[in-house]
Amino acid sequence: MNLFREESDSFGKLEVPSNMYYGAQSARSLINFPIGIETMPKSLVRALAIVKQSCAQVNMDFGLLDAKIAEAIIEAAGEVMEGKFDEHFPLSVWQTGSGTQSNMNANEVISNRAIEILGGVIGSKDPVHPNDHCNMGQSSNDVFPTAMHIAAVEEIINKLLPALKYMHEELDKKSKSFEHLVKIGRTHTQDATPLTLGQEFSGYSAQVANSIRRVEAVLPALMQLAQGGTAVGTGMNSIKGFDKAFATQVAKTMDIAFVTAENKFEALAAHDAIVEASGALNTTAVSMMKIANDIRFLASGPRCGIGEISLAENEPGSSIMPGKVNPTQSEALTMISAQVMGNHTTISIAGSNGHFELNVFKPVMIYNLLQSIRLLSDGCQSFTKRCIVGITANEERIAKLRDESLMLVTALNSHIGYDNATKIAKKAHKDGSTLLEAALALELVTEEQFKEWVVPENMISPREL
Amino acid sequence: MNLFREESDSFGKLEVPSNMYYGAQSARSLINFPIGIETMPKSLVRALAIVKQSCAQVNMDFGLLDAKIAEAIIEAAGEVMEGKFDEHFPLSVWQTGSGTQSNMNANEVISNRAIEILGGVIGSKDPVHPNDHCNMGQSSNDVFPTAMHIAAVEEIINKLLPALKYMHEELDKKSKSFEHLVKIGRTHTQDATPLTLGQEFSGYSAQVANSIRRVEAVLPALMQLAQGGTAVGTGMNSIKGFDKAFATQVAKTMDIAFVTAENKFEALAAHDAIVEASGALNTTAVSMMKIANDIRFLASGPRCGIGEISLAENEPGSSIMPGKVNPTQSEALTMISAQVMGNHTTISIAGSNGHFELNVFKPVMIYNLLQSIRLLSDGCQSFTKRCIVGITANEERIAKLRDESLMLVTALNSHIGYDNATKIAKKAHKDGSTLLEAALALELVTEEQFKEWVVPENMISPREL
Amino acid sequence: MNLFREESDSFGKLEVPSNMYYGAQSARSLINFPIGIETMPKSLVRALAIVKQSCAQVNMDFGLLDAKIAEAIIEAAGEVMEGKFDEHFPLSVWQTGSGTQSNMNANEVISNRAIEILGGVIGSKDPVHPNDHCNMGQSSNDVFPTAMHIAAVEEIINKLLPALKYMHEELDKKSKSFEHLVKIGRTHTQDATPLTLGQEFSGYSAQVANSIRRVEAVLPALMQLAQGGTAVGTGMNSIKGFDKAFATQVAKTMDIAFVTAENKFEALAAHDAIVEASGALNTTAVSMMKIANDIRFLASGPRCGIGEISLAENEPGSSIMPGKVNPTQSEALTMISAQVMGNHTTISIAGSNGHFELNVFKPVMIYNLLQSIRLLSDGCQSFTKRCIVGITANEERIAKLRDESLMLVTALNSHIGYDNATKIAKKAHKDGSTLLEAALALELVTEEQFKEWVVPENMISPREL
Amino acid sequence: MNLFREESDSFGKLEVPSNMYYGAQSARSLINFPIGIETMPKSLVRALAIVKQSCAQVNMDFGLLDAKIAEAIIEAAGEVMEGKFDEHFPLSVWQTGSGTQSNMNANEVISNRAIEILGGVIGSKDPVHPNDHCNMGQSSNDVFPTAMHIAAVEEIINKLLPALKYMHEELDKKSKSFEHLVKIGRTHTQDATPLTLGQEFSGYSAQVANSIRRVEAVLPALMQLAQGGTAVGTGMNSIKGFDKAFATQVAKTMDIAFVTAENKFEALAAHDAIVEASGALNTTAVSMMKIANDIRFLASGPRCGIGEISLAENEPGSSIMPGKVNPTQSEALTMISAQVMGNHTTISIAGSNGHFELNVFKPVMIYNLLQSIRLLSDGCQSFTKRCIVGITANEERIAKLRDESLMLVTALNSHIGYDNATKIAKKAHKDGSTLLEAALALELVTEEQFKEWVVPENMISPREL
Repeated sequence: MNLFREESDSFGKLEVPSNMYYGAQSARSLINFPIGIETMPKSLVRALAIVKQSCAQVNMDFGLLDAKIAEAIIEAAGEVMEGKFDEHFPLSVWQTGSGTQSNMNANEVISNRAIEILGGVIGSKDPVHPNDHCNMGQSSNDVFPTAMHIAAVEEIINKLLPALKYMHEELDKKSKSFEHLVKIGRTHTQDATPLTLGQEFSGYSAQVANSIRRVEAVLPALMQLAQGGTAVGTGMNSIKGFDKAFATQVAKTMDIAFVTAENKFEALAAHDAIVEASGALNTTAVSMMKIANDIRFLASGPRCGIGEISLAENEPGSSIMPGKVNPTQSEALTMISAQVMGNHTTISIAGSNGHFELNVFKPVMIYNLLQSIRLLSDGCQSFTKRCIVGITANEERIAKLRDESLMLVTALNSHIGYDNATKIAKKAHKDGSTLLEAALALELVTEEQFKEWVVPENMISPREL
Repeated sequence: MNLFREESDSFGKLEVPSNMYYGAQSARSLINFPIGIETMPKSLVRALAIVKQSCAQVNMDFGLLDAKIAEAIIEAAGEVMEGKFDEHFPLSVWQTGSGTQSNMNANEVISNRAIEILGGVIGSKDPVHPNDHCNMGQSSNDVFPTAMHIAAVEEIINKLLPALKYMHEELDKKSKSFEHLVKIGRTHTQDATPLTLGQEFSGYSAQVANSIRRVEAVLPALMQLAQGGTAVGTGMNSIKGFDKAFATQVAKTMDIAFVTAENKFEALAAHDAIVEASGALNTTAVSMMKIANDIRFLASGPRCGIGEISLAENEPGSSIMPGKVNPTQSEALTMISAQVMGNHTTISIAGSNGHFELNVFKPVMIYNLLQSIRLLSDGCQSFTKRCIVGITANEERIAKLRDESLMLVTALNSHIGYDNATKIAKKAHKDGSTLLEAALALELVTEEQFKEWVVPENMISPREL
Repeated sequence: MNLFREESDSFGKLEVPSNMYYGAQSARSLINFPIGIETMPKSLVRALAIVKQSCAQVNMDFGLLDAKIAEAIIEAAGEVMEGKFDEHFPLSVWQTGSGTQSNMNANEVISNRAIEILGGVIGSKDPVHPNDHCNMGQSSNDVFPTAMHIAAVEEIINKLLPALKYMHEELDKKSKSFEHLVKIGRTHTQDATPLTLGQEFSGYSAQVANSIRRVEAVLPALMQLAQGGTAVGTGMNSIKGFDKAFATQVAKTMDIAFVTAENKFEALAAHDAIVEASGALNTTAVSMMKIANDIRFLASGPRCGIGEISLAENEPGSSIMPGKVNPTQSEALTMISAQVMGNHTTISIAGSNGHFELNVFKPVMIYNLLQSIRLLSDGCQSFTKRCIVGITANEERIAKLRDESLMLVTALNSHIGYDNATKIAKKAHKDGSTLLEAALALELVTEEQFKEWVVPENMISPREL
Repeated sequence: MNLFREESDSFGKLEVPSNMYYGAQSARSLINFPIGIETMPKSLVRALAIVKQSCAQVNMDFGLLDAKIAEAIIEAAGEVMEGKFDEHFPLSVWQTGSGTQSNMNANEVISNRAIEILGGVIGSKDPVHPNDHCNMGQSSNDVFPTAMHIAAVEEIINKLLPALKYMHEELDKKSKSFEHLVKIGRTHTQDATPLTLGQEFSGYSAQVANSIRRVEAVLPALMQLAQGGTAVGTGMNSIKGFDKAFATQVAKTMDIAFVTAENKFEALAAHDAIVEASGALNTTAVSMMKIANDIRFLASGPRCGIGEISLAENEPGSSIMPGKVNPTQSEALTMISAQVMGNHTTISIAGSNGHFELNVFKPVMIYNLLQSIRLLSDGCQSFTKRCIVGITANEERIAKLRDESLMLVTALNSHIGYDNATKIAKKAHKDGSTLLEAALALELVTEEQFKEWVVPENMISPREL
């Protein structure tokens, strides 16, 4: 058997591996762009197949495409959607900036598979033609951005939002379970007035709740699909009504409320919706950096740090020292945050560089967006499961630090005056004594008074008028 | 008369310029932070005064603050709000990360002016005390983030949104006035199928409409105010209900629907709402870069560029060459875009670096956010007024380029087949002839047929089914 | 045959695929970090093997490691260096921030292979122990940053610098071959005084020459190796002199002048050398964006753009329009530039977040740095080979634009005065005529004079005093 | 007296404030660019004056400029250099992207002052003309980038390098004074093996030493001056040799080894040298973030943090709590670092957006670069003076944490075996006891042995072979 079959495009003949469903244009792209190791994300390949399937359906519905061919395309595209042909999409991210070659890759694989379904010869373009049938009424310029939006929406809905909701739920549980634990607060990284550990965790929980809101808010713009704009946004070569019918078809297939883009010129020439989405991920990453940092510092120790909480041990922290639990899930999540923040810079720069009727930074934009979504999804999932869930409060340590703190002196202000309270705190600080010891030594309060007045539990909320 | 008066804080005495309303803590800050030339933005100073005024009002309403003192504070704060004391707020952005010293600056100026109103001696802290009265029930840790949000919201509502709406309106007008002008499209910076100049401008208009939507979408989070959280978010030293009453008061004063923050711990320790807002500005900047770039390229020339549109001349472009109009408004707007994109990096990094109960990158975050808002506001306003409004279409040039384009051959595909159309285009490209000349030379169509079939006006929309 | 073998670490037993050389700690990492699809770069795996090989050699030389074991490790590590075991390094980038698990991955694979070489049983840790022998006198905290530097240096020297030099050489050739072609200059994207196409390309060539200088300048800092610092930089558990002997060994193996790091505390706790290197790549990306952008605009057309140069056709640009050559290599290179610029943000943020004795963003830093190096290497190589080399000048078009330009009027200033020259230019601009026509119509010069005085070739250099 | 004088440019008449030395083109710029509050940096204004002075000198030397006029220009420019006319340079950063209007601002102010010196009438352009004399042989396109480089070099040499050297010196002193203090190390923010506080500070010192090296390394590229390239880099309208003579003159005036740019096309069209310089500042900011963060965490407390060092108190930290010293200098420096990192994004984006013969993001690039230089200079100076110098070690606290640490058990490995050492550490961790207590309870060592073997001082360096 031959290892290669000969195919041709308008540039001439070239060899395609016999076991591959892609054709000449994909093969040529592999030759012309031997750059990096990053291939088109699988979720984007799936989205391209969704586009092809939906176009075939609508073209058949419109009477433009023979039913037999359309149904073969629909079946073939369905298989690509399921990931059965992932290895047949080897093209680099670093190709034509319109993603043209990945569109052709989809056309070639789907048409060849459809040919096969119909009993034809792979590579023959008969009875299913990659351009005439699989790309009917389409252009790379509308197919690729449509697939970008579909992939992003699907990944956000299926991966990111569930991960964030799981994280929110578990942080909320922790917040509730820690609501009775009064601890020292820290501002400027310095000791401050107390709060409960539950209150502290409620801040993290609120950050994640806001992340969910922010991510959900980008969906409407992403749910607008460019399909029907064809080459420059005018829809030339397309049929009136195709755009809406297409969006309806995708919405039905995916059970997600996709609509056709309000302005197709904007949808091809700018990818502000992608930049907007990345902005929400960036804010989420900023939140994650704060949460994961706080948790590792609160768990720092075991002896020489803050040590107010303990983390589950997931792996040996050190071959030498027992009790050393490295906050490795925090480390993974903060690394991810840095990545997402940098990806946002890439996406913003790429988004700003469109010219005239087409932005030709499409592959780099969707590669980064999908990486950011994926990393935040997996990272939040893993961090929640392997870190948050297992957090325990070190109640003794919390109490010890709280009770040693000089900040509790604040409670005396209203009883003995600010100046006297200051004297107590200064003496305790100087002597390394407790506030009680200093207060008694200065004969400013009795022990009974001190214990009545200095009650951290009373310092964690506003007072009644 | 003495040039200085002696004041003191808990660190000792120091001299304050006699003509200044600020006091010891501001003076000490000037000594300790001789860094850069960036002072706290005026809109933030105004917002601090709004906070002080509203707190005084609520404290009076709650019966905590003597009416005479409260009213003097309210009057003094009102004057600061009007900008009458701007020069008394000289502190650097590069100070304590909580903005504590700018909070004290406000307390000092307002208390001294209130003292003056009540006939007292400036610097005496009597009868109005900067801490006891002006900072009553407050902490820098809630005052400053509250002022950050108030300033950002006010600037967005009063400056940015009107500028964006003006820009949108004028782009929309241009889009409509250019709707009949069929021109060559450009994808990959290369000639493509035609569209109208109006369609092209509709893309810009859509981008700005989306910018308005994006910026409006950040307001709800910014309208949440941290006030009432005091030092660590617990509201210790505050009164139950103060937070809501405060927000209501600010809403009333400003006629903007401010509310108290849902979670005060998040509101002090994280500034994700600022990062989110900056994200919307970043997307807006990305849009502006595209629009301003396109406009300068479409206007490039006068002879050796694209030259499809002309820009109003605002200033001499060159001392040598008449007719040279530099697209200077595009240049200002794209520089602003680069600034806003970089500010977004700063804000994101700063936002990610909060620790425990307090983020101490507050001044740098609000300095950058307000600069971004201001620059986009002024930049869009100026660009619209001095560039967009004056854009004219060079109809002859547009027609010439369109008619010379080889891309129109596409219209022949359905009549003589793709292969024959290809032959015509290739011949014209090779000979440098027109499509008509090539078509006639190849005897593939008659002149009548060509003129009937190759009609750019018919290539700018989908066809009927 | 069993599909799995049972191994154990201090956390208990777990199953390892029988056909894999890695062991328990790697397997546990796969369980704990199911995040993303990004695995440790192959060049880093190679560098880890270089570290292991060199350590074994030095430990043997120091008499600490039995020769038989050392030699087996050296052989096994050599095979890993050659890439023979790449599939045995499946760990995610998003793991422990010190890269500990990838260090253990290397220890496990190399020890198992060494065991195999010595006839032992894989997984038995006998006679070669992953920790005691492969990690002897080492810590992840010095091994991983050492491997980071080795990998970066090797990729820069073997891939990036050759690619940049190739690009420089070819741009230089183009610059020389175009040195006689006088063309219109463009400033502010508007017509300006002339220069040669060769001069224009000399600017690009100079940018690449500077890129080479910048990239070479980061090598000395990267050639400093952290090895010998062990866990916190003190070198505890290491041997005096080990650090220098190690660096000498690596230098010998790789024929690159590696040295031991001057300050091991800095080398573990900060990765400023990586940030510095990324800065040079960022500047290179900025240069590439300019060059690739210019080239696509100069080649824009074929009819309706600038069209002064033509690019080689590498693939079909459009299924419709012959003559449409999309500047796809420019598109790939500018996408790469955006990626490298964003990676730089990631690296900078990661670099800024070290705490105390260890920066725990190591994997994300090296993942991004190696991606940037690889993409710039491949991108510049491909862009040079498939774009620069094939650039041809469209001499007719260049001459036409140049001669139509109004800017040449500048040459008349010294003969008929600025005011008269202005009149000519204004008339030509208004009438759409040539400068000569306008000059004659105004009777300000004769045709002979015009042709003598207005000579673009005389406008491309300073004049003699 | 009239408040305004009437001036005119080629666009017509306009009013200029009588007390201002600037003229029509500056006045028009103020009308056309009412954007933001950022004016051209004073150090850039000074650099423009240096350019003007040096050009006048060389033009006089070349016999092109009348000595009387040249000398008046030289004197006037000298006064501008001294800052005497700063208020006469009110133009916005957000103007023409070539800085043309600031070049004209310099021409107008200097010519008017020169006219005044020579007894003429301000605004008359007689006997000193802003264009003909002050701009002789120059173009904004070479003047402005030349001034960018001069300003950057001067600020780096006069401000940044001294500040970094001061910081390095003081960190070095601290490192030496702390060299005997053995403390617990921390990796992954968790307790680790010991090091001395001096070793820890030596890492910071090394980072600053590297910052100095990095910043010095950007000077050669910045010392290349574009002057002589005129409008597009060809030097048209300039005189052969002018470029070199100019650079020599500037070098003489400033006593800095400026040279003429190797390639003038690159020097106008790209500002990679500015991006490169910003890259060094970015790396410096990354270093500062690490150092300032570590210092605030090491000083965290006073009771509930790490508290190994104490910082000087510079201002009241809290109106409530004595002993609370907020690490405000760390806060200022880390805010500055975030700003510099974001400025680097701005500069990189701006640098990547040059087109053809001119990059028109010049003002935003130099505004950000000079801000970064200034902030790092002032920030490092202030941080050193008000924070580093006053750092004291809390020896008791250091000893306590060190001695409580479980990590010291490592020292027993070689005496009683890893497994037994592990038992001790685990027991101590579980019981909250000391290692000694646990070791004795387990009867694994005697107290004498423990005290002989567990000596932190012996754990801070490699051992002898």
